[in-house]
Amino acid sequence: MTEIRPGAKLIGVIGAAQPSAAGYAAAREVGRLLAAAGAVVVCGGLGGVMEAVCRGAHEGGGLSVGILPGPDQREANRWVTIPVATNMGHARNVIIAHSARALIAVEGSYGTLSEMAVALKLGRPVLALGMEQPLAGARVVATPQAAVAAALALLEDTAFLEGNHAR
Amino acid sequence: MTEIRPGAKLIGVIGAAQPSAAGYAAAREVGRLLAAAGAVVVCGGLGGVMEAVCRGAHEGGGLSVGILPGPDQREANRWVTIPVATNMGHARNVIIAHSARALIAVEGSYGTLSEMAVALKLGRPVLALGMEQPLAGARVVATPQAAVAAALALLEDTAFLEGNHAR
Amino acid sequence: MTEIRPGAKLIGVIGAAQPSAAGYAAAREVGRLLAAAGAVVVCGGLGGVMEAVCRGAHEGGGLSVGILPGPDQREANRWVTIPVATNMGHARNVIIAHSARALIAVEGSYGTLSEMAVALKLGRPVLALGMEQPLAGARVVATPQAAVAAALALLEDTAFLEGNHAR
Amino acid sequence: MTEIRPGAKLIGVIGAAQPSAAGYAAAREVGRLLAAAGAVVVCGGLGGVMEAVCRGAHEGGGLSVGILPGPDQREANRWVTIPVATNMGHARNVIIAHSARALIAVEGSYGTLSEMAVALKLGRPVLALGMEQPLAGARVVATPQAAVAAALALLEDTAFLEGNHAR
Repeated sequence: MTEIRPGAKLIGVIGAAQPSAAGYAAAREVGRLLAAAGAVVVCGGLGGVMEAVCRGAHEGGGLSVGILPGPDQREANRWVTIPVATNMGHARNVIIAHSARALIAVEGSYGTLSEMAVALKLGRPVLALGMEQPLAGARVVATPQAAVAAALALLEDTAFLEGNHAR
Repeated sequence: MTEIRPGAKLIGVIGAAQPSAAGYAAAREVGRLLAAAGAVVVCGGLGGVMEAVCRGAHEGGGLSVGILPGPDQREANRWVTIPVATNMGHARNVIIAHSARALIAVEGSYGTLSEMAVALKLGRPVLALGMEQPLAGARVVATPQAAVAAALALLEDTAFLEGNHAR
Repeated sequence: MTEIRPGAKLIGVIGAAQPSAAGYAAAREVGRLLAAAGAVVVCGGLGGVMEAVCRGAHEGGGLSVGILPGPDQREANRWVTIPVATNMGHARNVIIAHSARALIAVEGSYGTLSEMAVALKLGRPVLALGMEQPLAGARVVATPQAAVAAALALLEDTAFLEGNHAR
Repeated sequence: MTEIRPGAKLIGVIGAAQPSAAGYAAAREVGRLLAAAGAVVVCGGLGGVMEAVCRGAHEGGGLSVGILPGPDQREANRWVTIPVATNMGHARNVIIAHSARALIAVEGSYGTLSEMAVALKLGRPVLALGMEQPLAGARVVATPQAAVAAALALLEDTAFLEGNHAR
């Protein structure tokens, strides 16, 4: 298992609850690659893209944080490492945007668009994978590798979020 | 480092932002003991008792989740492993209560009382360590060892929160 | 109907969902008196004390705002004038504390204690009516008249919240 | 002043913080028309379109509710009748979507798009006025009159939200 140190770098992964098979596979690969790079996945903790990325993170020896809409951890998909229950429904999306240093969106519709818009409003970089009509401001990428490489590169630009962590 | 598996057991630790030296030491020991038992600490991520418990969890080879009141991770104490930024101020306390299966309170005043009351309302067991006037319904314990032992024993009673995790 | 002008003065009323008959009557009288004074009631919008104070505000020709825990206005008691649906459960209590300039608590248990604690933390004055063990920091009053008179007098001390409203 | 009865019909108005002069005028007219029809405006309570619609509602003898992002009512524009302080930043947008039976969007960018997406996700009808690229699912209207007429007509379809109010 990859060691996770204080001040872990969180990368948000958002997307469709009912993705295509290709979307599911892409999200799973995103999870594996993020874990391998020592990043922690933060997502909505439910099914589809959220499940796939948590599964990939687990397979890659890493961790995932699921920011859940309901009142307890029972609704988390089975691969979420750290289930955080908000009981705040869609408002939890804003927590994902605040917690992530960059976000990767895989497919998705209204919910994903809403979260992309909040993330862009907050100045978080957003990478769009497999979206036909991403919001202006998001950067379109073609592969999980490209998405993860871009997200990790962007972390350098958010060094202001480093704080004073124990390393 | 202790391996953290999907569906990690989260124990909330709440308390004073400016504890006594004894309170700080107690919270740190609570963190160490929880980490050693494979539990994940969830707390408010700032100073005082929150810092102490994250520090102890780190020293014990475990993880802590800091549910922060502000818009990004910069305000996290340096020992928080997973900083979750809510930008929701005191409303974040409710997230801690929903996410924890049991809570341990160390000293503390209004903020801690508010969180204890919400946790009790939600049916989460609350153990009070070093509080002169804990709320009715909280169980007073005398030592960090007693607090952690009681919290872990209570996890058996919240098996309904287990879900269907990968183990 | 009392005219409500921009920048209305909101007074929070919190308390038991299942009050005694005396508690219900007291909350209703609090609503009537606040309405007569031109203040707007803000409460949790459900039953018991919340219903009583909205009913009293309506009878007094005034308005009430119900900050509801669920996803739409259907759960509002029938006397709420302005139903605000948060879908945030107990976290809505924090919104009531932020929105009110002063709060009046009538009976109540964990939920009410939690809200009183947050309000005191935020520096809002809290008046406790008919509570056996109010939190330290709350001011005990004996009658609805005393509660309303004290709340209105305290508004003078929160003149800093006036802003620049159209009057 | 229009009488506001329990169970008031709330219509959300969202849009640019820095609208064009035409956008400001349109939002103000939307506010006037909604007030004249007995509907209550719910918005974000700050400047631009939010200010314009509150101003129009006031001029039309009606009420506006401002769901504010910050910790107290001071940031409300001077025309907000009922300032609700959430201290939840962008998460307050979700409260507007839950509270409104239909929403009218006037110009706007990321913030407005995010809110439109949440509203559509929640099944609230969204009317877009003067937006070049509204989200799919929103209904484009050309004038304030058309927006208000459509919103009021749509209320019939949300009769399920009526509850059992005192009328």
